[in-house]
Amino acid sequence: MDYFVRVNMGTRSITEEKVPEKYLRLGGRALTAAVISNEVPAGSDPLGSSNKLVLAPGLLGGTGVSSSGRLSIGAKSPLTQCIKEANSGGTAGGYLARHGIRALIIEGAAANDDCYILYVGKDRDCRLIEADYKGEGVHALMSSLREKWGENISVVCIGPAGVNKMRGASISVSDPDFHPRFAARGGLGAVMGSKGLVAVVIESPGAAQREPVDKDKFRETTRNLNRALQENPKTGQSYRLYGTASILKVVNEIGCLPTRNFSAGSFEGAEALSGEALHDLIDERGGEGCYGQRCMPGCVIRCGNTVPDADGKAIVYNLQYETLALLGSNCGFSTIDAVARLNYLCNDIGLDSIEAGAALGVALEAGLAEFGDLEGAVKLLEEVRQASTLGRVIGNGALITGQVLGVERIPVSKGQAFPGYDPRALKGNGVTYATSPMGADHTAGNAFGSRATTDPLKKTEQVELSRKLQRQIALFDVLGLCMFTRSALPDLQVAVDLVNALYGWDLDVAALLKICDDLLQTEWAFNAREGYNPEHDRLPEIFSKEPLPPHNTVFDVDPEEMAGLRKFA
Amino acid sequence: MDYFVRVNMGTRSITEEKVPEKYLRLGGRALTAAVISNEVPAGSDPLGSSNKLVLAPGLLGGTGVSSSGRLSIGAKSPLTQCIKEANSGGTAGGYLARHGIRALIIEGAAANDDCYILYVGKDRDCRLIEADYKGEGVHALMSSLREKWGENISVVCIGPAGVNKMRGASISVSDPDFHPRFAARGGLGAVMGSKGLVAVVIESPGAAQREPVDKDKFRETTRNLNRALQENPKTGQSYRLYGTASILKVVNEIGCLPTRNFSAGSFEGAEALSGEALHDLIDERGGEGCYGQRCMPGCVIRCGNTVPDADGKAIVYNLQYETLALLGSNCGFSTIDAVARLNYLCNDIGLDSIEAGAALGVALEAGLAEFGDLEGAVKLLEEVRQASTLGRVIGNGALITGQVLGVERIPVSKGQAFPGYDPRALKGNGVTYATSPMGADHTAGNAFGSRATTDPLKKTEQVELSRKLQRQIALFDVLGLCMFTRSALPDLQVAVDLVNALYGWDLDVAALLKICDDLLQTEWAFNAREGYNPEHDRLPEIFSKEPLPPHNTVFDVDPEEMAGLRKFA
Repeated sequence: MDYFVRVNMGTRSITEEKVPEKYLRLGGRALTAAVISNEVPAGSDPLGSSNKLVLAPGLLGGTGVSSSGRLSIGAKSPLTQCIKEANSGGTAGGYLARHGIRALIIEGAAANDDCYILYVGKDRDCRLIEADYKGEGVHALMSSLREKWGENISVVCIGPAGVNKMRGASISVSDPDFHPRFAARGGLGAVMGSKGLVAVVIESPGAAQREPVDKDKFRETTRNLNRALQENPKTGQSYRLYGTASILKVVNEIGCLPTRNFSAGSFEGAEALSGEALHDLIDERGGEGCYGQRCMPGCVIRCGNTVPDADGKAIVYNLQYETLALLGSNCGFSTIDAVARLNYLCNDIGLDSIEAGAALGVALEAGLAEFGDLEGAVKLLEEVRQASTLGRVIGNGALITGQVLGVERIPVSKGQAFPGYDPRALKGNGVTYATSPMGADHTAGNAFGSRATTDPLKKTEQVELSRKLQRQIALFDVLGLCMFTRSALPDLQVAVDLVNALYGWDLDVAALLKICDDLLQTEWAFNAREGYNPEHDRLPEIFSKEPLPPHNTVFDVDPEEMAGLRKFA
Repeated sequence: MDYFVRVNMGTRSITEEKVPEKYLRLGGRALTAAVISNEVPAGSDPLGSSNKLVLAPGLLGGTGVSSSGRLSIGAKSPLTQCIKEANSGGTAGGYLARHGIRALIIEGAAANDDCYILYVGKDRDCRLIEADYKGEGVHALMSSLREKWGENISVVCIGPAGVNKMRGASISVSDPDFHPRFAARGGLGAVMGSKGLVAVVIESPGAAQREPVDKDKFRETTRNLNRALQENPKTGQSYRLYGTASILKVVNEIGCLPTRNFSAGSFEGAEALSGEALHDLIDERGGEGCYGQRCMPGCVIRCGNTVPDADGKAIVYNLQYETLALLGSNCGFSTIDAVARLNYLCNDIGLDSIEAGAALGVALEAGLAEFGDLEGAVKLLEEVRQASTLGRVIGNGALITGQVLGVERIPVSKGQAFPGYDPRALKGNGVTYATSPMGADHTAGNAFGSRATTDPLKKTEQVELSRKLQRQIALFDVLGLCMFTRSALPDLQVAVDLVNALYGWDLDVAALLKICDDLLQTEWAFNAREGYNPEHDRLPEIFSKEPLPPHNTVFDVDPEEMAGLRKFA
């Protein structure tokens, strides 16, 4: 794992270079942030040729550590105008790592509307191939690539939303079953589309994992961690049976479940959208339905699922909590079937289901259809696929949708839609939405798991909590480790041992944490350079004025206190 | 001229207060800026109830000084998210001043979609009247108000764009002929609409001017200034014969005339859109056509016109240069008839013709119609009137239109469309667009008049020039004096003499300029509070990358140098 591969879409030149010294200890989000920060000039148009799209596995990518193959994808975001990283499961992260590619850097932009596929073969033998793209959805595109190149590939691709450069566009990554997983947020799919790159096809590097410097230590530590994951009730059982939807009932009970465009925090149909309901529906319907699916080989958590219809045929793969909240309760839908169908459409169009759900919620409030009107919502998503003017409005996300349609309650921070926790009843998340370099994000420091120790309705201690969580999550993003492993990780020494054994380094916990702190500082500095300062670390005014039922709280964390979050002790 | 009148649209209470001590020496833009800065909380939604709309005549308002009755209208702008002032001719500024109203402050917001008219009678006898608004255009609304209240009123009102809270909405002000003039920029019409206020009807205060403290001095200085205006070739003749369009041919010759969405700086049809062509067309067609119309009583400049159709019937009133550039060459139209028709529609819908022209240019580039397709452009503007989704896109301005439609060249700064000078070939204006607290604005420091002394194609000296012009124009905005008087103003002592004689003050030139400097600092400080810092003082990347024909220059003024503009020596 020793190379940067640079692909210039303008000149179609492909070069590789040894990882420069200063980047050697960076992985995943730390690496995407550093490259973007150093190489994308200030004031670059995120959809112009100066922006760069960086794909980087984490430090533990390509090893036998459970859930360690996440792929970080970064760029300057057209949605937030800030630096962005979104990471995804799937096989691509592990494949790139095992090909020795620490970062795949896509630069420049193809001329006209030319479209290319990048093929990454063994020994980093890379080439650009002209694509005959005709507007296919993600599922058809993935299938056709598999047909052409066979089973032993991983695909990173976009759909019509990305090709049409919409700010809500995701990037999908194929998993072992060749179903799409997503680096969903921040409109990175639009960046990929703006470069004229519709897919990256990565040949399997074969069965061998990366060779650790200290094999015994690495094997032993890995074995211990994987065992801990299996023995932990959450990572060893709950995620497998109920997926991420396992939290939905509790989110509803504590009153922060986005409901009908964030107008309420509890939803009468929550029970029917819960992880338990999803589990039972899969059991009852059988057929292609299943839970416990892996997004990468060797994962012991297995939070994925296939949602079957009444005849047992798959409606969608990997229906997750955020989607159930945003496309479900937030749009007034109270059946898994409805949400699964909308989720499939978003996946196929290559559209972030969170951004799309928030944009639809806003559009429904504006009266483009009724809350709970499935055919109305389907029609709106099909408009996105067609890239009609209305479709482009929605495909560009919740903020633009709200601005165009004249809706006052637009649930966004730094231009990006809130995920599935209303910040008025889970105030720690409000702080994260407001202050994270990523904009509103559920993977940037999610306070849901801390509700037992920090009252989610109170404004006190939330800044400190969010700061702690933002640092913590950065570590997972650097390692390429799924954040769900958190519950089973006894302490950070395990991560340090793994990294040291793999690379032959001598980091201690403090040194590893410093990489994470530096990462956050790099991101904040990039954003400051682009004009995002602590004055932007606020939520839209309405969330501090309009009380949220059932607790009737507003978001009232002191803006001055939030503005201080960027400073680490 | 001693009172603030506050109208709370939420409670429908109307109160008056003596002008607080600290505001006593402020007028026009200085007063709107100070009130907004002190009273609109940080982070306020510009279309929410915390924003305030402030109408303030300038310090010389309500006097016999030629062209001194401009009305400043200010708020936090929904288009730029910055502080905003747009000023307009018409009779309202003088009327308010003579009623003793230094500022009319509209606060709060009406419940539901209730609409009101504010009536301002003699002795500041104000009342809110429920409006039975049914989507009328500005012309019909003005006529119906005149029908109800008679000839002796001035009207300040919005059209469908403002009622529908679109970010391109203007506020119109009736002139002595009861034709609409406009405080066009920044989406202030949307702010007025968000408050539920469709019109302010101001009863004429009668014939008497305001009484100066030193009558003789004031009368003498006024007489001298008015004579100088009459004797100056520009203010005494050129504006009267050719209007503001008198500059169009030169703008085209120097190569900065916005053409087909700012893709070129000269236009093959420029001759046909020139002030000379407009003058001749009016002469030839006769009928209702005329030039030399005043926007306020006593104006000696008289730059207004009525554009007649082939039968002599009025197509539009006061066709101006910026409109000819943005709705004309920028949309590929090369006949005055076409531009006049589009201008009438914008006026009637209550839409800023600059923002609309820029948004249309972007929409035409995106292929919604062809450049030069009149019926196509008319149809798009009618969509705005109907507030369809497409119409809402365009009515929200060039930035949102470009973002939705995926156009790379979006001519905006701080969210507001460039006026009629491409910044790549008139670089001083580029600096003003980038650095003015107002966003891209032709009245915030226009370098066109300085082209003889500062090469518009060179990047040197532009920051210093823009700084000088931004300070200079602030003075006119504080006095309520039309900026066209500039050419005839021998020195600033005249302004000082007028103000001192009117109020009995003892300001010197430095003290008057300090009011202007303080005004700019107040505005920049407000914007900084809202997160707009020197990092935002840049133009979109494409304008520094794509050369503009015919000179093939890019905008290359050093961003660091521009960032320093805010500092006054």
